[in-house]
Amino acid sequence: MVNARDSINQPSGRRAVARCAELGRAPYSEMEGGLFRPYLGPSYRATCDRLATWMHAAGMTTRMDAAGSLLGRYEGLAPDAPVLLLGSHIDSVRDGGFFDGMLGVILGIEAVAHFAAAGKRFPFALEVIGFGDEEGSRFPSGMLTSHAVAGVLDTPDPAMRDWADTATLATALAEFGLDAGRMHAASRKGENILAYVEAHIEQGPVLEAEGRALGVVSAIAAQHRYRMTLRGMAGHAGTVSMDLRRDALVGAAEIILAAERIGRAGTDGLVATVGSLDVMPGAANVVPGEVVFTLDVRAGTNAARDRAAREILAVADAVAKTRRLELAISMQQDLDATPCDPRLTTFMEQAVRDVTGADPRLLVSGAGHDAMIMAHLAPVSMLFIRCAGGISHNPAESVTDADTDSALRAMIAFIGLFERHFG
Amino acid sequence: MVNARDSINQPSGRRAVARCAELGRAPYSEMEGGLFRPYLGPSYRATCDRLATWMHAAGMTTRMDAAGSLLGRYEGLAPDAPVLLLGSHIDSVRDGGFFDGMLGVILGIEAVAHFAAAGKRFPFALEVIGFGDEEGSRFPSGMLTSHAVAGVLDTPDPAMRDWADTATLATALAEFGLDAGRMHAASRKGENILAYVEAHIEQGPVLEAEGRALGVVSAIAAQHRYRMTLRGMAGHAGTVSMDLRRDALVGAAEIILAAERIGRAGTDGLVATVGSLDVMPGAANVVPGEVVFTLDVRAGTNAARDRAAREILAVADAVAKTRRLELAISMQQDLDATPCDPRLTTFMEQAVRDVTGADPRLLVSGAGHDAMIMAHLAPVSMLFIRCAGGISHNPAESVTDADTDSALRAMIAFIGLFERHFG
Repeated sequence: MVNARDSINQPSGRRAVARCAELGRAPYSEMEGGLFRPYLGPSYRATCDRLATWMHAAGMTTRMDAAGSLLGRYEGLAPDAPVLLLGSHIDSVRDGGFFDGMLGVILGIEAVAHFAAAGKRFPFALEVIGFGDEEGSRFPSGMLTSHAVAGVLDTPDPAMRDWADTATLATALAEFGLDAGRMHAASRKGENILAYVEAHIEQGPVLEAEGRALGVVSAIAAQHRYRMTLRGMAGHAGTVSMDLRRDALVGAAEIILAAERIGRAGTDGLVATVGSLDVMPGAANVVPGEVVFTLDVRAGTNAARDRAAREILAVADAVAKTRRLELAISMQQDLDATPCDPRLTTFMEQAVRDVTGADPRLLVSGAGHDAMIMAHLAPVSMLFIRCAGGISHNPAESVTDADTDSALRAMIAFIGLFERHFG
Repeated sequence: MVNARDSINQPSGRRAVARCAELGRAPYSEMEGGLFRPYLGPSYRATCDRLATWMHAAGMTTRMDAAGSLLGRYEGLAPDAPVLLLGSHIDSVRDGGFFDGMLGVILGIEAVAHFAAAGKRFPFALEVIGFGDEEGSRFPSGMLTSHAVAGVLDTPDPAMRDWADTATLATALAEFGLDAGRMHAASRKGENILAYVEAHIEQGPVLEAEGRALGVVSAIAAQHRYRMTLRGMAGHAGTVSMDLRRDALVGAAEIILAAERIGRAGTDGLVATVGSLDVMPGAANVVPGEVVFTLDVRAGTNAARDRAAREILAVADAVAKTRRLELAISMQQDLDATPCDPRLTTFMEQAVRDVTGADPRLLVSGAGHDAMIMAHLAPVSMLFIRCAGGISHNPAESVTDADTDSALRAMIAFIGLFERHFG
């Protein structure tokens, strides 16, 4: 099969990486000296056009759906064959990396190019999809386009303004040649969509730490996010003796350490994070009177998340009581876990085993992905690719040609296994 | 002696409280609906004028010194007798309370009024001083006027602008009829100043918590203030597994709890406070990469402060090592302890014992006072008066007539003891 020594004109990991890099600058980026590719903007249009030429070269027909996602179709043995969808997202956050989303789209094209070169057809069509809005890159939304494709789009507000305050969703779609009133027409509900398979950089450091090129996603994490307020009594840092203090920050410190301890002891990819914390009044010579902080708890199952969240909140309650602090908690985010399809996951594990020769690592995805939404439409599977330092949403985002080649071979192997068990 | 039932025209705690309250509004304040009395402003002038009438009524002559502090003098038995100084400061922070500083000035006047009414003279003159700038209420300075009186004034920058950006120190002094070049002439160095005695509200909750009206200050606290930075690695709160994190905030949490533990275990009025803390990048879904926080450590002796600071910094070092965080520490403030004069302190203890019938509570003053500066000129003693909730620098600042009356009787008793042991 392909490897890094092959020509850049053949489907390969090397070509996939080079293509992602090519799309990292103007006209495929709207940011000087970095990558920013917001949904429906001119760089998004240019990128879709470039992707379409690669899709055509890989033997696909292309179309834009009613919500602005790009689709390439490689026909199956019969014209109305069911569909295996491969893809990820095209849009990028401001000053993002070359590979977040885009690598999954390009790997889909490379896989199809591989089969096209071999003249191979399947009893299903292969479609490569590049979603337009996963990041909320342009509008205060996120995964708008996968919601549309999965047929679970709540009617978005057409008057929603973009971050730059230059357009509404309706005018941006209209400039792109689309109609805000017809976004729902992107839905594939009722069609025979066999599965959605997404390859994506890990955006975390686990594979790198374990010396693995690839990982198989078992689930996209369940998440609870809380906003917590501890109120004590502000006072002069020189005049309030230690025993008379009701210091909100030392209370918060106990809860932060408990979140770490409980997070470490958990199962199913549990993580617990206090990421934001504000101290009031926040002066060096004043005992903190109030602290507001966030608590984010994620795990591969709702049960593991719920158990950990319950334990941390119980500690918070006890701390508040012992320290005579008032505690207020509000839930900011409550997302159920999205398990990947068990049968597809065994195929992906087998594919990774075949390519790497090692037992695959199952990972919970702590970040959200379009696959989460697509699970409403069809069984989903995800492949993770090692990225340097776990860094993402950053120009330093990086993958190797070799790892990407392994990912391509795993995708190809997966499609072979899928065919073998099809029907 | 006087008590709360006495006429408001007699020296009493009740009259002292009423006088402080009278000076809490226009023309003695420059703030609508609250008290703000900046150094050398029109409200400061009006207040000095009003205080001078009360000083005159108490048998004193008055003058303004070269730095703008108000002085009232009650002559001793001989015209060139040595001087016992009583006082505190006249200026007030914005939206401050009626009693911070002013109560000490008024109690000085009340004590003199008491002796004047009895026709009593001492082998020393009594002088009541109202310092102009303790708070840095107008300029980015503090205790400017006590530095001048004590003869330890570094030449202040006459071009220093006030907070409101309406005047320089030179123009403000000139408008007040003073000369920036002559501030040093306020120095009492070389004169026979026997002692400086300051009564002040506690500005803390200890006396209230222990059910005591009065406390005797043993020392004004030594202080170290540090700015500490912990640097780890920011990362996605969903994708970085717990064992791979270098979370700066959980490191800070360990240090915060250590500061509390060490502060509680300390002696000599030790207090340790993390009052300000900033988290970078500070988003709910990002593992904290950097935390900057302050550590304030105070105690009645340098030794107790140094020991505690050393212990806390050792914990910080250990935490940084264990958690693979970078730690940077810079000293922001380094003030030595100012012990009150031991002999005067025993007089003040005796005076409080005589008045309250209970063994007096010795307190370290965690806040700074003019007495700290005046210790360069003469032995100092301080009396603390219970204030409601320990609240100060706030309109809710409050003292009772009865406690203030106890304070007045203690000051009178102190002067009696001082006379008995004089010479």
